[in-house]
Amino acid sequence: MSERTPESQPASVLRWRGGTAESVADELAREEPLEIRVDGRPVSVTMRTPGNDEELAVGFLLGEALIAGRDDVRDVRPLEKERECNTVDVRLRPGLAIDFERLRRNVYASSSCGLCGKTTIAAVRQTFPPVTGGLRVDAGLLAALPARLRAAQATFERTGGLHAAAVFTAEGELLVVREDVGRHNAVDKALGWGLLAGPGAFAEHVLLVSGRSSFEIMQKALAGRLPIVAAVSAPSSLAVQFAQESGQTLVGFLRDGGMNVYAGAERVALPDRTEDRTLDRTSE
Amino acid sequence: MSERTPESQPASVLRWRGGTAESVADELAREEPLEIRVDGRPVSVTMRTPGNDEELAVGFLLGEALIAGRDDVRDVRPLEKERECNTVDVRLRPGLAIDFERLRRNVYASSSCGLCGKTTIAAVRQTFPPVTGGLRVDAGLLAALPARLRAAQATFERTGGLHAAAVFTAEGELLVVREDVGRHNAVDKALGWGLLAGPGAFAEHVLLVSGRSSFEIMQKALAGRLPIVAAVSAPSSLAVQFAQESGQTLVGFLRDGGMNVYAGAERVALPDRTEDRTLDRTSE
Repeated sequence: MSERTPESQPASVLRWRGGTAESVADELAREEPLEIRVDGRPVSVTMRTPGNDEELAVGFLLGEALIAGRDDVRDVRPLEKERECNTVDVRLRPGLAIDFERLRRNVYASSSCGLCGKTTIAAVRQTFPPVTGGLRVDAGLLAALPARLRAAQATFERTGGLHAAAVFTAEGELLVVREDVGRHNAVDKALGWGLLAGPGAFAEHVLLVSGRSSFEIMQKALAGRLPIVAAVSAPSSLAVQFAQESGQTLVGFLRDGGMNVYAGAERVALPDRTEDRTLDRTSE
Repeated sequence: MSERTPESQPASVLRWRGGTAESVADELAREEPLEIRVDGRPVSVTMRTPGNDEELAVGFLLGEALIAGRDDVRDVRPLEKERECNTVDVRLRPGLAIDFERLRRNVYASSSCGLCGKTTIAAVRQTFPPVTGGLRVDAGLLAALPARLRAAQATFERTGGLHAAAVFTAEGELLVVREDVGRHNAVDKALGWGLLAGPGAFAEHVLLVSGRSSFEIMQKALAGRLPIVAAVSAPSSLAVQFAQESGQTLVGFLRDGGMNVYAGAERVALPDRTEDRTLDRTSE
């Protein structure tokens, strides 16, 4: 089915399979630039999938520590007259002091100082303290989340081209799923939804991402106060180090009913038998 | 086997499968920040996998149109004394004029003007004209490339965490493969290798990327003058539009012996029979 949506657009492609070529209808994940402004001032441009732009802008600002909660946002609106499309302006609470020069440095660089992994993490943690709290989720419940994500990931089914980020409650209820060509954008949108329409911070929730986990993903999750991050694919070394030093639980390779726990294993409840077995390091 | 390399590092993880947990040795794809300087001046920080940093820096500058070829580079060296690690300085040919303010704007944004897809592409194409030329590659040869890439992708096998970019000749010979946690970094490294140690421009070559293709990947390929870009996964809408307007051939879903051709199909040689069949749009 060929349908133009904010997330996808139809295309005609030449498909070659088994030595035979034919022209077929396909759908592409849409990618367009979005300029984010704060009080009219441009602060970032990101290549993103259109849709939920207000959430993306607010989630981005949360991750940059420019805002701390919903009260800091007066309103968010696309600038439809000024440009044809693709600009969104976040107006902040009057009196909120913004260090635009610091933001410019951050946009230039994830971290412009230090540059060993440890210094980078320390710089982020100055802004976002570690997560704490005794949230505990069953391993079996975590293992069931990817299937729920896939069921909700509408555009990926048609295009194969989108990353997804979803937030679940500790009981496994799906609160929000957002798709984007950029995996960091998908997380920004989910966090922005939480701030604009959801429960605000996600202190008792699980973030699930469809791909890999990186430093940037863990940083954004920390900004959203998410204690558990689960990814369908592999983590990077810095994602693991970041999780360990930020009190986060990091699960990877969450697929086919299994998972690897890279940090914060105390939040993953395993059946008693296997926990004993692991702690004793006995083998049969 | 647990081995510390520039690309990966060992880790101990809790693996949960089929209701049983055990502590196992794993390897993680390394991710660390790299600061790129030009003549001592910081221009960008990227989260990358260590290794081939000089290529990454030079490939990045090629994509930003700060350099046009090997002659523009005096030398490239890591700054080992000034910082412990993770800074590389590219010294340019004396007399080469650099517009640092323009670079700053580019780093701030893929395109800071216009912001509809069409304007973004036009801005890039002002700098990098379309590719031309009659290169033609057999569909069967293209279909065989992913297996050659996988055979050469050493770290992915151990970590599952790296993107790859490879350049092949039109005869299917693998010239270079580079891996990175960031897919744009993998492309930068491959292009940088071409400039520093390889044939310079890649006017008769094929770029293969392990994941999806985006605006950014196509832009970098155009900077490297690559006429054919093939990706194992889906393209974005802007990648297809960019390829069409830049004269590039874009192949997607290159896997399991098949492919989709999204742009520039004239460079993909199909068996005569199927070409006729496609042009006639007959079905059996």
